[in-house]
Amino acid sequence: MIVQGADRTGIVSAVAAVLARHQANIVSLDQYSDDPLGGAFFQRTVFSLDNLPLVLPEIARDLDKQVKRPYALDYTLRDLSVPLRMAVFASKADHCLLDLLWRHRRGELPVSIPMVISNHPDMAEEVRGFGIPFFHVPSAGPDKSAAEAEHLRLLKGNVDFVVLARYMQILSGSFIEQAGVPIINIHHSFLPAFIGAGPYAKAKERGVKLIGATAHYVTEDLDEGPIIEQDVVRVTHADTAADLMRRGADVERAVLSRAVLWHAEDRVIRSGNHTIVFA
Amino acid sequence: MIVQGADRTGIVSAVAAVLARHQANIVSLDQYSDDPLGGAFFQRTVFSLDNLPLVLPEIARDLDKQVKRPYALDYTLRDLSVPLRMAVFASKADHCLLDLLWRHRRGELPVSIPMVISNHPDMAEEVRGFGIPFFHVPSAGPDKSAAEAEHLRLLKGNVDFVVLARYMQILSGSFIEQAGVPIINIHHSFLPAFIGAGPYAKAKERGVKLIGATAHYVTEDLDEGPIIEQDVVRVTHADTAADLMRRGADVERAVLSRAVLWHAEDRVIRSGNHTIVFA
Amino acid sequence: MIVQGADRTGIVSAVAAVLARHQANIVSLDQYSDDPLGGAFFQRTVFSLDNLPLVLPEIARDLDKQVKRPYALDYTLRDLSVPLRMAVFASKADHCLLDLLWRHRRGELPVSIPMVISNHPDMAEEVRGFGIPFFHVPSAGPDKSAAEAEHLRLLKGNVDFVVLARYMQILSGSFIEQAGVPIINIHHSFLPAFIGAGPYAKAKERGVKLIGATAHYVTEDLDEGPIIEQDVVRVTHADTAADLMRRGADVERAVLSRAVLWHAEDRVIRSGNHTIVFA
Amino acid sequence: MIVQGADRTGIVSAVAAVLARHQANIVSLDQYSDDPLGGAFFQRTVFSLDNLPLVLPEIARDLDKQVKRPYALDYTLRDLSVPLRMAVFASKADHCLLDLLWRHRRGELPVSIPMVISNHPDMAEEVRGFGIPFFHVPSAGPDKSAAEAEHLRLLKGNVDFVVLARYMQILSGSFIEQAGVPIINIHHSFLPAFIGAGPYAKAKERGVKLIGATAHYVTEDLDEGPIIEQDVVRVTHADTAADLMRRGADVERAVLSRAVLWHAEDRVIRSGNHTIVFA
Repeated sequence: MIVQGADRTGIVSAVAAVLARHQANIVSLDQYSDDPLGGAFFQRTVFSLDNLPLVLPEIARDLDKQVKRPYALDYTLRDLSVPLRMAVFASKADHCLLDLLWRHRRGELPVSIPMVISNHPDMAEEVRGFGIPFFHVPSAGPDKSAAEAEHLRLLKGNVDFVVLARYMQILSGSFIEQAGVPIINIHHSFLPAFIGAGPYAKAKERGVKLIGATAHYVTEDLDEGPIIEQDVVRVTHADTAADLMRRGADVERAVLSRAVLWHAEDRVIRSGNHTIVFA
Repeated sequence: MIVQGADRTGIVSAVAAVLARHQANIVSLDQYSDDPLGGAFFQRTVFSLDNLPLVLPEIARDLDKQVKRPYALDYTLRDLSVPLRMAVFASKADHCLLDLLWRHRRGELPVSIPMVISNHPDMAEEVRGFGIPFFHVPSAGPDKSAAEAEHLRLLKGNVDFVVLARYMQILSGSFIEQAGVPIINIHHSFLPAFIGAGPYAKAKERGVKLIGATAHYVTEDLDEGPIIEQDVVRVTHADTAADLMRRGADVERAVLSRAVLWHAEDRVIRSGNHTIVFA
Repeated sequence: MIVQGADRTGIVSAVAAVLARHQANIVSLDQYSDDPLGGAFFQRTVFSLDNLPLVLPEIARDLDKQVKRPYALDYTLRDLSVPLRMAVFASKADHCLLDLLWRHRRGELPVSIPMVISNHPDMAEEVRGFGIPFFHVPSAGPDKSAAEAEHLRLLKGNVDFVVLARYMQILSGSFIEQAGVPIINIHHSFLPAFIGAGPYAKAKERGVKLIGATAHYVTEDLDEGPIIEQDVVRVTHADTAADLMRRGADVERAVLSRAVLWHAEDRVIRSGNHTIVFA
Repeated sequence: MIVQGADRTGIVSAVAAVLARHQANIVSLDQYSDDPLGGAFFQRTVFSLDNLPLVLPEIARDLDKQVKRPYALDYTLRDLSVPLRMAVFASKADHCLLDLLWRHRRGELPVSIPMVISNHPDMAEEVRGFGIPFFHVPSAGPDKSAAEAEHLRLLKGNVDFVVLARYMQILSGSFIEQAGVPIINIHHSFLPAFIGAGPYAKAKERGVKLIGATAHYVTEDLDEGPIIEQDVVRVTHADTAADLMRRGADVERAVLSRAVLWHAEDRVIRSGNHTIVFA
């Protein structure tokens, strides 16, 4: 259960009272208030109950009455034993896609993967080898509307979130809105930032000592959405631009898989342009 | 407020209800249960209240009645605006001692420091320059009982916890018991461990690539108490044993200062031989 | 080219003069002396030459005359364009094995892999899917001599080094000697060390905050050979023993792949019980 | 000795031959070529010699004849037993300044510190307590020319390099040129970058998970000079903007002290807009 809204005295107590009434055993509870005096309030509560599917609607009714209306809070309730359905978008670079598929097969990602969509056909056989449907949707040319329409047909009703695993196409605002599910992107990151094409060559030219990656939710402002996770690796002057790319690929897949895991476990709450991560 | 004990349904609700009744505003709440089905339960709650010193006894009475007795839980209540009193024990190596004093002066450690105790007189002037009393208690020879008796006289009633900042003397079980306050120690750590004297020389001989430090609570089993914090730094074959010691000193003071900060903010709960750290 | 021996004035000059005489262009040169006054000397030199296979024997003759004899140094010469042949030993845990196979297919490891050997048949299909021969050599029971004899038959003349990718069997001293090639092992590492079975459970019990891995060359002293690479990841009290194992598996495969890469590029020089790594 | 220039066959040999002729014992040698086929060449050689001050001019004459002219290379020779003279510029933030002074007193930085210059008088007593001259040079108002003229009078002939330890004033191109010595700056760094005032507030708003620092040489393009060293620390949503600043200050002083150490030991070679760091 995720509860969020304006902080007020008594919220934690009201929420806990509802759960206690239903004999729910609280497994973990993370709570965060961004300002003790009237800031925003966030709470993630994991609880176990014997007949969860049956009792969830009753708990929801109680929460509406005891929490939502009196405290003007939003809440979401989810059965963690039902995995979220994740679509993966990929292009030619396969390191992030394969890392996700591999971790999924090893049981490390609590999601189902109903489809992989790519604008290149190259990975079809590899993906299907994992027992996962692969759809090739070409998207050449400046007009992406046909491709995006096809994407929406495939996604509609079938997925709970989308992961862009080095999908090198820009998504339109209209697509993001119509998709109606969270979209997670991964991109390389540098200290300082290098704008435009060829960032690894520029990083090499400037002699950076760290190569990083950022996983974030996609918003209309490309690469400006709420950050979920970041990490860096150390490089030296002796690393070529190709070495930087390889090290960058390693950190990208590590960061993306952590972000996907946390999203799949409902550990990430969006708030404005940032996230609360109860990792 | 720290609450801990056997996990049962309704604890969170009962605690929150007490706080709500006193109009306490919950600033942060961390909760952890080591097993959803009947494990140990730990909760740290920070709340703000206008007349805290006046109301605390009433809250305690309520907690006794509503939480402690019905749920067989222990709790502690503390006013975070009253800093804990920290004694520092040091020997000749000054890097950990000075780091603590320096951070304290910069306002980074919410403690008061009523005394520094050392078995060497060397640091007297430096410590007093920070406005902190310095006591030289020699402890040569195998019999530490006179020194420990002097330590206990100095500490008794004056401190809330003790930090061993590279204090190179072993404390007797009797001293630990009579001191009656938590004692935090820092020591170097290696992967793998190197037992006995001259660990840096052995680490150099084996060619380790990481040098670490561990901060822990002191128990009768030397260097075996509950771990609070650890960290490592990377070294190479080109680092001499002296370099390893210098890098080790850097990581020791960083780790110790984090452990002291978390202890001072009551973020560390001891449980058996490990800790719950709500960092 | 690797040169090593007792340090003396003039070595670098003598080596460089030989290379200059053959018009070799020095691409990179790393040099290390563990004591300015008469310690051990190590040098790794990468050079490019048009007809390398033809000229190498001549360079070797010159090095014998100008470097080896007058300075009592050992040297090795190798054509980096010829990849080393690597055998992988695995058991049931597949994370290290698959990481190596996957990186190899992506072109990140400059080796050939003539065989994977396992005491379990489980991974046969997966390994062969990478186009790599898989040999199942059972090794139940205390007497490993039949299994080791089979291993030696498979390896003899076919491989340049062996990687134990979580191969959970102890190798006899006789096997190590007869194999006659470097053997690299990966194992979990903790601060402090936890001896014996169930280290993750013990680490959880002690509340460690870091989980690590060490890659090293195998010697008769199990897990005591020269260290090639180490790394750690951060964990918390909220990680279960299963989480610790998963995080440990992640750091194991990262550390092992770096160690293999450096070995394959001749960046690691063994000296006594430690290594010089020109990473 | 630092040698740099266009890479050509025979350079290493020619340099080594000069040193061998003078019976210099090579303690360490690092070499790097940014392209095997005709790129730029960099070499750092540390050697020991009994009468170094007497012999250095002779070695220089030989290098001119045998290396500089035939290979069109530049070289610098320096006696590492003579510490470089470092001036520190500071403002109100004292964490970087004090860290440098403290490490210097502990013998960790092989430099002399003839002066600290600040535009605020606050740190005078503290700095002089370290036995180091302190000069207060106010620089209010938009016209910095009087202050810079005073800076140049103080520096001229007295220092080998300048460190800006959170000196919050912009240096004019004319000052940089007339100072005529390397200037090292430290500044906070974020993934992604946050331009303009209040970067910590913006980082908090975007929910960054890493806070970093970059040490670099100062050029006319503010904060765009060759990078010497970088590092990051992990933060969470629960860190306030004040926490971010404190964590940032910690990483700033660690990064700056490493950059100063490496510069003081001549481990950093500038090339175009990047550096070669033989750390």
